[in-house]
Amino acid sequence: MTYRAPINDILLALNHGAGLKAAVEAGHYGDFDADLTAAVLEEAGKFASDVLAPLNKVGDQNGVKLADGKVTTAPGWPDAYKRWTEAGWNAVSGPEAHGGQGLPLAINAACTEIWSASNVAFGLCPLLTLSAIEALDAHGSDELKQIYLGKLISGEWTGTMQLTEPQAGSDVGALRTRAERQGDGTYRIKGSKIFITYGEHDMTDNIVHFVLARLPDAPAGTKGISLFLIPKFLVNADGSLGARNDIYASGIEHKLGMHASPTCTMTMGDHGGAIGYLVGEENAGMRCMFTMMNQARLGVGLEGVGVADRAYQQALAYAQERKQGRAVGKKGDGSDPIIVHPDVKRMLLQMRALTAASRSICYATAVALDVAVRAKDAGVRADAAARGALLTPIAKAFSTDIGNEVAYLGVQVHGGMGFIEETGAAQHYRDARITAIYEGTNGIQAIDLVTRKLGANGGASVFKLIDELTDIVRRVEASNDPAFGTTGAKLRDALGSLDRASRWLLEKLPSSPNDALAGATPYLRLFGSALGGCMLANEALAARSSGEADGARHVALARFFAETFAVQAPSLEKTVTDSAESIMAADAVLVA
Amino acid sequence: MTYRAPINDILLALNHGAGLKAAVEAGHYGDFDADLTAAVLEEAGKFASDVLAPLNKVGDQNGVKLADGKVTTAPGWPDAYKRWTEAGWNAVSGPEAHGGQGLPLAINAACTEIWSASNVAFGLCPLLTLSAIEALDAHGSDELKQIYLGKLISGEWTGTMQLTEPQAGSDVGALRTRAERQGDGTYRIKGSKIFITYGEHDMTDNIVHFVLARLPDAPAGTKGISLFLIPKFLVNADGSLGARNDIYASGIEHKLGMHASPTCTMTMGDHGGAIGYLVGEENAGMRCMFTMMNQARLGVGLEGVGVADRAYQQALAYAQERKQGRAVGKKGDGSDPIIVHPDVKRMLLQMRALTAASRSICYATAVALDVAVRAKDAGVRADAAARGALLTPIAKAFSTDIGNEVAYLGVQVHGGMGFIEETGAAQHYRDARITAIYEGTNGIQAIDLVTRKLGANGGASVFKLIDELTDIVRRVEASNDPAFGTTGAKLRDALGSLDRASRWLLEKLPSSPNDALAGATPYLRLFGSALGGCMLANEALAARSSGEADGARHVALARFFAETFAVQAPSLEKTVTDSAESIMAADAVLVA
Repeated sequence: MTYRAPINDILLALNHGAGLKAAVEAGHYGDFDADLTAAVLEEAGKFASDVLAPLNKVGDQNGVKLADGKVTTAPGWPDAYKRWTEAGWNAVSGPEAHGGQGLPLAINAACTEIWSASNVAFGLCPLLTLSAIEALDAHGSDELKQIYLGKLISGEWTGTMQLTEPQAGSDVGALRTRAERQGDGTYRIKGSKIFITYGEHDMTDNIVHFVLARLPDAPAGTKGISLFLIPKFLVNADGSLGARNDIYASGIEHKLGMHASPTCTMTMGDHGGAIGYLVGEENAGMRCMFTMMNQARLGVGLEGVGVADRAYQQALAYAQERKQGRAVGKKGDGSDPIIVHPDVKRMLLQMRALTAASRSICYATAVALDVAVRAKDAGVRADAAARGALLTPIAKAFSTDIGNEVAYLGVQVHGGMGFIEETGAAQHYRDARITAIYEGTNGIQAIDLVTRKLGANGGASVFKLIDELTDIVRRVEASNDPAFGTTGAKLRDALGSLDRASRWLLEKLPSSPNDALAGATPYLRLFGSALGGCMLANEALAARSSGEADGARHVALARFFAETFAVQAPSLEKTVTDSAESIMAADAVLVA
Repeated sequence: MTYRAPINDILLALNHGAGLKAAVEAGHYGDFDADLTAAVLEEAGKFASDVLAPLNKVGDQNGVKLADGKVTTAPGWPDAYKRWTEAGWNAVSGPEAHGGQGLPLAINAACTEIWSASNVAFGLCPLLTLSAIEALDAHGSDELKQIYLGKLISGEWTGTMQLTEPQAGSDVGALRTRAERQGDGTYRIKGSKIFITYGEHDMTDNIVHFVLARLPDAPAGTKGISLFLIPKFLVNADGSLGARNDIYASGIEHKLGMHASPTCTMTMGDHGGAIGYLVGEENAGMRCMFTMMNQARLGVGLEGVGVADRAYQQALAYAQERKQGRAVGKKGDGSDPIIVHPDVKRMLLQMRALTAASRSICYATAVALDVAVRAKDAGVRADAAARGALLTPIAKAFSTDIGNEVAYLGVQVHGGMGFIEETGAAQHYRDARITAIYEGTNGIQAIDLVTRKLGANGGASVFKLIDELTDIVRRVEASNDPAFGTTGAKLRDALGSLDRASRWLLEKLPSSPNDALAGATPYLRLFGSALGGCMLANEALAARSSGEADGARHVALARFFAETFAVQAPSLEKTVTDSAESIMAADAVLVA
C-alpha cells in the first residue's frame, strides 16, 4: 500500500503540541506566513505519495551496487532525485541568500517526517545535505559559500558527513585521517573513512564531502580536528566541473536495512591525496561538526517518526482488511477483520500514540531551534536555544526507540505475513534499526541529556519545562471531561517522577557520575513519556476547544498514551534511582 | 564468535528456579537419575558448539533453494543432521518403547535452548518432529506407531505440522483442505497449506506430514477437522520406501530471518490426491493438534531463550573487546573497552537478566509437564498439569518477547557494526522475530492466559502460584542481605499487582469480556515479570546458601531484574485496569 501524509495530525502537532501557533502569534517567527504551512505540507504529501513511496520497496529489493569505484542506485532513484530538486524540495529551509526558500525548520521537520515515511533511505540523502548546508553556512568562507552553497541548497550536488573511522566511532577524537597544508591555501587529505552515507552515488554529477581530519601539528583528541570540504570533482573558476578529486568509494556495506542508501568506505590518498578546503578554523572542526550533528540528530528523530507512521498506516490497512476469527460474542456466519479484536486495537493504538508523541517532541525541538534564531528578543532566543538543546537528544533517542517499537508492532499485526519480506512490514522493521544507532547512539543521547543538558545549568531548563507541562495537566484537570479518564492523574504522577529523578541525577552527577550515567537511558525514556504525554494532552485540549468532532478522537488518544506509556514513569524513576548499585556490580555478574 | 552453553546457569535454573531438584527429591520423577543431567548437557553443549553453531551463519547466508519440487538446504546442513541423529540427540525425550531415551522434558528443554542458541533455524526442524512424535504417540493407532514412531524418534525421518491456509491462520477452524474416505481405510487429501516449516528438504529420505483436513460430511469450524498422517514416500510392508505421495512443495517464502529453514507452500492433489492415514478419531483433529501445539509452544519459548543467550554472548564478547572512549574519571592515554561505560553495562545486564528469567520460566513449564505425567499421586499430577497449562502461554510469549528485546539490545551494543550483516548480531535480531508470531501469536497466548488459564478455575492456579512466590519473597526479606537491595520490596509490589490485576480480570471476564481481553497483553507481561523476578531471587537464594562465590553474582542479577523489570509491575497493573475504556474507543481514533 502507499503512504498518505497525515496532514491534519501534523498541523495539530505543529501548532499546538509543538507551540508553532503561539510562537508565530508572539511574533517570534518574524514575517513568516503561517497560512502557507498547510499548502506546503499538502504538496509535500503529494510528492511523497506519488514519487517517493513507490520507490521504497524497489530500493530495498535492488539495493545499490559498487563497481570500479562507481555506485549505481536502484532503478528510478536518479530520476526521482532529479524531480525532487526540480520541485524545490531540497531548498525548503535553505537560506534565501543562496536560493533557499528560507522556511522555518519546523516546516522542514514536518517535511522530513513525510520524506522519511514515504522512503526513509531516499530521505536520508537530503538530510545529510542539509547538515552540510548548515555547517558551511555557519562556518565556511565567503568563497566556499559562493561556490558550493547554492548547489547544495538546490540539491544539484549532495553533501556527506565523514567522521567515522574503524577505531573512531563514538569516540571521534581518536580519528587518524591526515591533512597537510599546501602552499596555495588548500590541503591534501589522506586516510579512509567508514560508514559514509551516500558517500558515492549516481544521482548527481558532484558530491561535496565534509571530512574531519588531523593536521600534522594538531593537538591530540577532539581539540586537534579540522573540518575540510572535499568535492568529488574540483570546481573550475567558471563553476564547471574540473578534475576528479582523490576520494573514492572502496567498499559498500551489506546492511540489515536501508538497502537503497549506499554506506561507503571512502579512501583518500591513492593518487596523491584529496584536495580539501578548510571550513572554519584549523583545529576547530569539532565545533563545525556539532553544527552538522545537532541538525542531523533532529533529522534522525524524524526518521523514527516517519518510519513509525508508515508502519502504522500499513498495519492499520491490513487490520481493516484481513479477516480472521470473530468478534467476541458475535453470532452468525463469516469472519471479521482482525481490528475487531481488543488486542489488535491495543497494538494499533500503541503504534499511533507513540508515533504522535514522538512527532510532537520532534516538532517542538524544531520550533525551539527556529525561535532561537528568529526571535527579536535576545532573552527569548537564549531560552529557546536552551530548550532546543535540551530537547534534541530526546527527539533523537525517544523517537527512534519508538520507530523501532512501532515497526515491531507493525510486523506483529501482520502475523505470519509480517515475517514474509514481500509484505513490506519487515522492511520498516529493518530500516528503522539504524536510527537508534547513527548520529550518536541512543545511549550517547541519554548521556548528553543527563550530563550536558540537565547538568549544564543546575537543571534550570528541565524545571522550567516541567512547570509548563504542569500547566497543561492543570488544564486537563480543569476540563472535568470524563473522556480524559485518568489522564490528569497519570501525567501529574509522571511529572512528579521526572522532577524527582532529575533532582536525584543532579545530586549524583558531581559526586558519583557513574551512578548518574547508569540511569541515563531510563531517565530519557521517562522524560519522553512524560513530555510526549503532556503534549498529546495539550493537542487534545486544543482539538476539543475547536469544537470539531476530532476533539473526542484526540482526547481518547491522549488518554490511551497516559494510561499505557506515561504510567510507566514511576517505575522508570525507581529504576533510575535504585538500580545504579546493581549496575556497578555488573562486572561480577557479566564476566564470570 | 562461537557459542558456549552456560551449563552452570542452566543447572541453577533447572534445579532451583524451575524446581527440578525438589521434584526429584519428592519422588515425582520416578527412577530418573538426576546425576546424569550435567553430563547430558555438557555433551549437548559440545555438539552445539562444534557442529551446529558454525553452520548458523552459513545457513543464513545461503538460505534454501527450491527447484522441481525439491528443496536444497545450505551447505553442510544434511551432514550436520546426519551427525545429529547418529549422536542420538533427536531421541532425548522420546518414549523408550520406540527407541527414545525417555529423559524428562526438563532435560530436553535445556537441550532445546542449547540447539536454538547455537542454530535456531536448525533446531526448529527437530522441534517440529518432537511435536509430531507427541501427537502420534498420544493419538495414533498401534499400526501407525509401529511404522512411523521409531523413525521419527531416531530422527531418520522428520515431521511437519500442517495447519495454516491463506484464509485460516490463527482461525484454524476456517481451513478448507479436503479429505475423502477410500474403501481401504485410507483417505485421499487435496488442498494446499502455507507456511509449512521444513515441509520439504534434503536432510532425510522421508518426511512425515501431519495435516489437518476436513471430511465431506464434517461439521463447520473446529469440530469438523481431522488429523492425517501423510508420508512424503509411502512405506512398504517391509519398512522400505514405496511410491512418492502426492504432496509437494510448490513454493518457498522469502523471509526476514530463519533463512535456512524452508517455509513451504505444500500442494496436495495434483496427481489424484495424497494418501493419508487418520490419526485419532474423525473430526477430533483439533484435540490432536493441541497436543502438538502445546509442546511446540514451550519449544518456541525456548527458541526465544536460546536466541537471547546467543545474542548476549556475542554482545558481551564485543563489549569486552571493542575499545572506544574512556572510563569516566580515568587519566592517561589509550581507550577502554566499551564495557566500562555504565550504559553498556546496563544493556548487557538487561540482556542477561531477561534471558535468565525467561529460561527459568520455560524450564519450570517443562518440570510441571513432566510431573503431570511422571508423578505417582493423581493429585500431584493434576496440580502439575494445571501449572503446566498456566505457564505454557507465559513461557511462549514472555520468552519470545524477550528474545526479540535481547536481540535488539545485542545489535545496539555493537553500535554501527550491529547494522552490518557480517557482524552477525543482526541475524539473531531477524531470526528472533518469528518466534513472537508462530505457534499462536503472543497476543493469542495472552488471550489464552486470561480466558482459559486464569479464567478456567476461578483463578485457583494463579493464586496458588502467587502464594508460592510470596514465600520466596519472604525468604529474600528474611535473608537480611543488603546485597539484595530493594529486591524484596519490588517483588512484593509486583506480586501485589499480579494479584489485583488477576482479580480485576476475573471480575470482568463474564460481564465485559472485551475489557478483559484488552488487558491480556500487559497482564502477561506483568505475570512474566513478577514470576521471572521471583524465580531469579529463588536461584540467588540457592546459590547464596551453597556458599560458593557465585552466590553474590546471582544476588546482583536478581536485584537488577527486580529493580529494572519487576518494578514495572505496578504500571502494567494500571494499564490492565485503566486502559480498557480507551481501547474500546479505538475505532474512533484509528479509523478517521
